[in-house]
Amino acid sequence: MKIIHSPRQMQAIIKRLKADKQTVGFVPTMGALHKGHLSLIRRSSRDNDITVVSIFINPAQFGPKEDFKRYPRPINKDTSLCKKEGVDFIFYPAVSSMYPADFKTYVDVEELGNLLCGKSRPGHFRGVATVVTKLFNIVSPDSAYFGRKDAQQAAIIKRMVNDLNVPVKVKVMPTVREKDGLALSSRNLYLGRKERKDALVLPESLRLVKKMLKSGMRNSNMIITAIKRLINSKKSARIDYIAIVDPVNLKSVKNVSAGSLVAVAVWIGKTRLIDNLCLNY
Amino acid sequence: MKIIHSPRQMQAIIKRLKADKQTVGFVPTMGALHKGHLSLIRRSSRDNDITVVSIFINPAQFGPKEDFKRYPRPINKDTSLCKKEGVDFIFYPAVSSMYPADFKTYVDVEELGNLLCGKSRPGHFRGVATVVTKLFNIVSPDSAYFGRKDAQQAAIIKRMVNDLNVPVKVKVMPTVREKDGLALSSRNLYLGRKERKDALVLPESLRLVKKMLKSGMRNSNMIITAIKRLINSKKSARIDYIAIVDPVNLKSVKNVSAGSLVAVAVWIGKTRLIDNLCLNY
Repeated sequence: MKIIHSPRQMQAIIKRLKADKQTVGFVPTMGALHKGHLSLIRRSSRDNDITVVSIFINPAQFGPKEDFKRYPRPINKDTSLCKKEGVDFIFYPAVSSMYPADFKTYVDVEELGNLLCGKSRPGHFRGVATVVTKLFNIVSPDSAYFGRKDAQQAAIIKRMVNDLNVPVKVKVMPTVREKDGLALSSRNLYLGRKERKDALVLPESLRLVKKMLKSGMRNSNMIITAIKRLINSKKSARIDYIAIVDPVNLKSVKNVSAGSLVAVAVWIGKTRLIDNLCLNY
Repeated sequence: MKIIHSPRQMQAIIKRLKADKQTVGFVPTMGALHKGHLSLIRRSSRDNDITVVSIFINPAQFGPKEDFKRYPRPINKDTSLCKKEGVDFIFYPAVSSMYPADFKTYVDVEELGNLLCGKSRPGHFRGVATVVTKLFNIVSPDSAYFGRKDAQQAAIIKRMVNDLNVPVKVKVMPTVREKDGLALSSRNLYLGRKERKDALVLPESLRLVKKMLKSGMRNSNMIITAIKRLINSKKSARIDYIAIVDPVNLKSVKNVSAGSLVAVAVWIGKTRLIDNLCLNY
């Protein structure tokens, strides 16, 4: 396994591999790798000759009051995990090589980036679309792997790839969960013991949705009201949003139907967690 | 020579050519080809195994009151010219295949796109950066060729390619002129006989700059004032802007130095023409 810091060097390596007709799978991450990331890496290794993992905490997708500085950076642990998984290259660039001082170009997916998480994180998805465009241009993957937990991110990247004719297949893989149901997230590391327990209200609220659907409920507002009641019963929980939307255009739906996306974002103390459920009943 | 309409088909063809280690040169155009375009095509043919010319009048770069509908579309003539020049592929997509109804993604080069031509053409350079990103993703060229006449466009595309790590070499080729000095432009076709004569005030104003520089003048304001006086002496001419700027960041410079860009935009009747001079004295 090689660790590459320079965008140009990474491009040169990929060019040689492509000339040798190797297929390239790509897993973009911000590091602090957990089993969710590892499931993406395994899928990429299975489907491609070469797997590249990027570790880059992208400042452009953090708001000024967000956790850019605090975000965990366990690079040695991440490196060993990648090595163990048979990753071929880690692309690990410095911020200054990704965003030189005179950087001015942004990729924006209009509308989709302003809904749901975009409402409380203005500019976040513009930062995501921009860095993913850069990473795709650097790694030129045949396929790129993303987690379903970040459902809005996946919808936006799919839209962007389609709109800009990006020659990359976007694969969205199932959310990986702890035994007790909590969706894996690097930000779970922020949670105190009591908070970790309260955070279970996110998967619980999705289980509640399944139960209501089983009983025949289809009205989005009534489902959302029930979720709100459940989450508000936890002392450390503060709702950012609860939404039931179309999975492609992310617009609210009045009545749940097959394929609808139930998305929740909840502050547990000072940690903002998200989870979602793609309905197919 | 083949004419390809479908973005996917174009991508598939290029993928095969690349697998055969062919180098691809690309000349993006809006058709109505003139000798300026032909000089780009010849350079591309000389430097690459395969040359692709795109003909696409990009609605995203026209304002609502601009000449999108009126823009010349002599597709048969363009096709013969390309054939004669030994072009391998014309990429000639429909608007609906480039911008499907749910299109939402734009590439924007901040600041650079709001100066000079951007002031009187809001959104123009966002449309240019977006379509060039799309075309680069469809054609995956090794090199792409642009005319120096559109100096701001060239600066913005270079910035975008650099910022987004686009793996394409951008080559900016000299402006081609009529014998009397008028820079070639598809929009010259709009000019009436009297207007065609008045349009010569653009190259004349650039010749005036050269003369002033020779006499030792370096003060941008004084040079601009002299150009304004000259252009205002033509009845059908109305100045949009006269500027002397840094060629990379496009900001005004107080004093002319080697490399400075003198850019003029002038309405001749209802036709907006641009010209420029890159100073190296």
